[in-house]
Amino acid sequence: MEKLSHSEIEKRLQALEGWEFNDNAIETSFEFKDFKEAFTVMTRIAFECEAQNHHPDWSNVYNSLNIRLNTHDAGGVTERDFKLAKTIENIIESE
Amino acid sequence: MEKLSHSEIEKRLQALEGWEFNDNAIETSFEFKDFKEAFTVMTRIAFECEAQNHHPDWSNVYNSLNIRLNTHDAGGVTERDFKLAKTIENIIESE
Repeated sequence: MEKLSHSEIEKRLQALEGWEFNDNAIETSFEFKDFKEAFTVMTRIAFECEAQNHHPDWSNVYNSLNIRLNTHDAGGVTERDFKLAKTIENIIESE
Repeated sequence: MEKLSHSEIEKRLQALEGWEFNDNAIETSFEFKDFKEAFTVMTRIAFECEAQNHHPDWSNVYNSLNIRLNTHDAGGVTERDFKLAKTIENIIESE
């Protein structure tokens, strides 16, 4: 899986909502009603990560969730990150 | 719930394994076999956090988990943090 160029990343970001390219990863944040809702969404995301064998760098404080995606082996952002980002977007939108 | 003094925090930390006082919170890190095991433990911790109505500042990357606890309303570390830290220790030890 090849690392995408900056311009390829910017182009693909246009198909997502609220994601940015920061510090060699694509990144987003969400706020939920409370911890329980945040962790419920994290659990749904976790199963999809496992299915795609691709895992986020993520952090949670109460109702907030920050997610960063990159592909360690490629040393940058790849199509795998955009695939997982789209999956995460679909999960959030279905809540 | 009153904020504990630095010496009270250091004393209570001796009853825990692998926790440190850093940047106004008590903090620890764990490494698990893989993402699935890390997230399984996170899920068990999440239920206890909800039961104690006290929530961590935590982050996960693949098999690693970092947990920081403090009490926002008290502006520092309180007994609630040590109660939750002990609960987390018990969960980890039972794995």
